[in-house]
Amino acid sequence: MFSNTRRVQIEWGHCDPAGIVFNPRFFEYFDWSTALLFEGALGMPKPEVLEKYHGTGIPIVESRAKFLRPCRVGQTVEIISTVARLGRSSFDVEHRLLNGGELAVEAFETRVWTGRDPNDPTRLKAQQIPAEIAKRLQHS
Amino acid sequence: MFSNTRRVQIEWGHCDPAGIVFNPRFFEYFDWSTALLFEGALGMPKPEVLEKYHGTGIPIVESRAKFLRPCRVGQTVEIISTVARLGRSSFDVEHRLLNGGELAVEAFETRVWTGRDPNDPTRLKAQQIPAEIAKRLQHS
Amino acid sequence: MFSNTRRVQIEWGHCDPAGIVFNPRFFEYFDWSTALLFEGALGMPKPEVLEKYHGTGIPIVESRAKFLRPCRVGQTVEIISTVARLGRSSFDVEHRLLNGGELAVEAFETRVWTGRDPNDPTRLKAQQIPAEIAKRLQHS
Amino acid sequence: MFSNTRRVQIEWGHCDPAGIVFNPRFFEYFDWSTALLFEGALGMPKPEVLEKYHGTGIPIVESRAKFLRPCRVGQTVEIISTVARLGRSSFDVEHRLLNGGELAVEAFETRVWTGRDPNDPTRLKAQQIPAEIAKRLQHS
Repeated sequence: MFSNTRRVQIEWGHCDPAGIVFNPRFFEYFDWSTALLFEGALGMPKPEVLEKYHGTGIPIVESRAKFLRPCRVGQTVEIISTVARLGRSSFDVEHRLLNGGELAVEAFETRVWTGRDPNDPTRLKAQQIPAEIAKRLQHS
Repeated sequence: MFSNTRRVQIEWGHCDPAGIVFNPRFFEYFDWSTALLFEGALGMPKPEVLEKYHGTGIPIVESRAKFLRPCRVGQTVEIISTVARLGRSSFDVEHRLLNGGELAVEAFETRVWTGRDPNDPTRLKAQQIPAEIAKRLQHS
Repeated sequence: MFSNTRRVQIEWGHCDPAGIVFNPRFFEYFDWSTALLFEGALGMPKPEVLEKYHGTGIPIVESRAKFLRPCRVGQTVEIISTVARLGRSSFDVEHRLLNGGELAVEAFETRVWTGRDPNDPTRLKAQQIPAEIAKRLQHS
Repeated sequence: MFSNTRRVQIEWGHCDPAGIVFNPRFFEYFDWSTALLFEGALGMPKPEVLEKYHGTGIPIVESRAKFLRPCRVGQTVEIISTVARLGRSSFDVEHRLLNGGELAVEAFETRVWTGRDPNDPTRLKAQQIPAEIAKRLQHS
């Protein structure tokens, strides 16, 4: 399956009075990691993907994380994001955040490919992931 | 001039490793304070104001703040927002954030009333503030 | 089990270019909801609880959420937070976020009661939840 | 005067329902830009600087920005941060954020060098910037 790795430096404003990353920030890191994973797999910016394949987005419908080790200001962490499951209209992404080479946070999220509802264009609806996109998300 | 006061409780996630509010959070508080000031003056939600008066928004063009005293987790502060200047197409808002009755942050921002450019509807342009809106922003 | 309900208004800055709450913000709402639940159960601010019971905090070790319906700017949602499980050194909190009376987000998190490691005071360690705290978290 | 340039990619979660960077995020960018400027000038991490020179931090006391052009998801901007004034106990930093080579945001902030109050070590107090630090902040 397709995978993308990026490095993020922990900023002062990402951390809370305990001196460690405030947990919602990890979900912010992962949201953008998924965007980069998706764009990396498709080889073009997300707006172009959506236009080309008549999609409206890949909203998150489920998310979970385990916080194993703290991360602190100034540390540079590595986030390895991988397509972990590819379904008909949804896919899962696994994020492994490593700090100094050790697993600090492990997360999974489920994304849905959505488009306009043919019966009511003002509404969005989960739709089958276009074959070309599915193929690229599977490609390692 | 119109004024609006609201109370905000300082949350754990608003604070940084020094145990005090991370400065960008104050601008987040003030952004929403201006939204509430504007809606309070007009007596209707912003989307309705924009639709009724053919506006597209009131983007911020300038902002400044003095940070006088720290604010800490769990404290409830008071934000007093007041229209400080009303121009042809822009207006200033003053925000005074009080902590325990003492001025902790003082800020000013300038907002512009924008609409579609009549020569190019894909572009936004500063426009004269509609008379009814100006009247209500001046009302104390 | 102890439960606490609070209301949150969705702010402009909580929302993303899709016009809906950016998913990490929900975890921010829930983090503070847990702080309020904890303080509500104990009847005193968290710093006092920690001092009285020689704890160092209640860090989050696991979190999961299902995003069922979008939330938009200006809407006021209700967050019902309930102690869902009480273990020896950890407890779970369930958060149900209702928008217009309908379940929009459902989340669970696990928190651990930590103190100084008796063998190395510079390190934190999960410890048994003090009996008085356990009793109050169970109280409905 | 010392200057540091960094590049930041605008993320989805940095933007608001208007599709542009939510203004408090710029102050978040600038806060970290100042941290990098300071560490770059001193040639060591901020915690080491503080320890070596007996300081407690460089809190922000004043900030102002002009928002000239919008920034959108996926764009990579350049932030040029420069020491703009060096006083006895405070210094100013100018941040110029360029988007596609054009000035999008211009900001100034004032930082104060603080240490423990010799008369009351529980309190912080502005102090003269150590000569070595002043020299390095001036170095271009």
